[in-house]
Amino acid sequence: MDAWPEARASNPELQQSVSPGRRWGEFAPREKNGVYGSIFGRRDVRSFLPDPIPGDVLVRILTAAHHAPSVGFMQPWDFVLVRDLDTRKRVRELSDKERRAAAVFFEEPRRDKYLSMKLEGILDAPLNLCVTCEPTRGGPQVLGRNSIPETDVYSTCLAVQNLWLAARAEGVGVGWVSILRNAELREILRVPPHVIPVAYLCLGYPKGGFPNEPLLQSAGWRDRLPLGSLVHYERWDRREHPGWKGFDGALGG
Amino acid sequence: MDAWPEARASNPELQQSVSPGRRWGEFAPREKNGVYGSIFGRRDVRSFLPDPIPGDVLVRILTAAHHAPSVGFMQPWDFVLVRDLDTRKRVRELSDKERRAAAVFFEEPRRDKYLSMKLEGILDAPLNLCVTCEPTRGGPQVLGRNSIPETDVYSTCLAVQNLWLAARAEGVGVGWVSILRNAELREILRVPPHVIPVAYLCLGYPKGGFPNEPLLQSAGWRDRLPLGSLVHYERWDRREHPGWKGFDGALGG
Repeated sequence: MDAWPEARASNPELQQSVSPGRRWGEFAPREKNGVYGSIFGRRDVRSFLPDPIPGDVLVRILTAAHHAPSVGFMQPWDFVLVRDLDTRKRVRELSDKERRAAAVFFEEPRRDKYLSMKLEGILDAPLNLCVTCEPTRGGPQVLGRNSIPETDVYSTCLAVQNLWLAARAEGVGVGWVSILRNAELREILRVPPHVIPVAYLCLGYPKGGFPNEPLLQSAGWRDRLPLGSLVHYERWDRREHPGWKGFDGALGG
Repeated sequence: MDAWPEARASNPELQQSVSPGRRWGEFAPREKNGVYGSIFGRRDVRSFLPDPIPGDVLVRILTAAHHAPSVGFMQPWDFVLVRDLDTRKRVRELSDKERRAAAVFFEEPRRDKYLSMKLEGILDAPLNLCVTCEPTRGGPQVLGRNSIPETDVYSTCLAVQNLWLAARAEGVGVGWVSILRNAELREILRVPPHVIPVAYLCLGYPKGGFPNEPLLQSAGWRDRLPLGSLVHYERWDRREHPGWKGFDGALGG
């Protein structure tokens, strides 16, 4: 049986199954390496080359997003592809206003640093993409969404991460512009009032390649937290537990 | 330079770089296959074998989650690991109440179908994991979070998807239980009132392997939408556009 026909249709190189001989089990080392490589090598990219993304690559990236999990299989996402320069200029202007407004809340020397950082590549990137959430898709009763209605937006975020990782595997950089106001963005892109613009993304080949570490880390803005400091055992208020002896040491931090 | 020391510390098999010779560029076909294999072969798993997840595998999966993108690098996630049977029984009871309450809103024959489906593996799975979002992490001013404060929860969702895909590569199944009420869940796990339980997950090796298609699809509950029906060109209200001629055909649907 064909496990991912949509993806292979646009990518003849893609093999039907991973790990021959252990079909749905653990991946082969090289495949595993690909998965971890995309996770650890993914970056928020803000500097792009002007080269366009080939159509087949874009189809694969969007197909990956569309295969995210969603509550009740509601698939609440939509993808607005934006290449038009005038539209991007309007979004860029909006983001710049938000950036300057946010600067007011930082104290020096953080404010200067904040204003000196390149935070988006809206105009450099050959493609912008707005991923939205349509909360009414699937009708008023979506399986699994009765208790926590925000799971529609959660599902949309999972699609964004699929897209981000597939893009990394294709050598395509993605940057998420969160310094935007949804009301204005809706107006620019004609998004209906009930639809939520979840992610405004810039896509393109990264100028100078993918950085080795997150930009905010190399800029000295903030460091990665030790994983061990984020793990709780059996209950939130237990940072160690006899049943988990040894494991906390393996986590480090 | 070592690109992902944390991951390799717990996985000597993992190679330092993908695609030797094109270090930060496109991945080799087999690595790409791994990425797409995890994306398309990932499932919401509800039937688990009792076998425990080895510590090193769990460390790698959590490390993958911790390497998700986050707004302003705030890393708002925490991980509550739950093996205790009494705790899981309480969560299972809560989920069952929510499930029956939600059933009231479905009309027959959907209601019968809904009630007949296995929606969670809280007690079968050897491990439960609650991924939370701590909105105050990083202080009152988080870079990039001024305009859309919910980006903290969005970041937490991205971490969940990293975890889900890394687990798939390790042969570990993950199921998201969304039929829960956060107030009660906070009480059971002693999560502080301002912290948001974003995802309650069941983890373990899948009984009978990973299904070929989503369970709600094979159960005839809902089908996957054609990707082409979800793509908009330049603006929300444009389902075709002269600048995108040919691309819409490549999408199908």
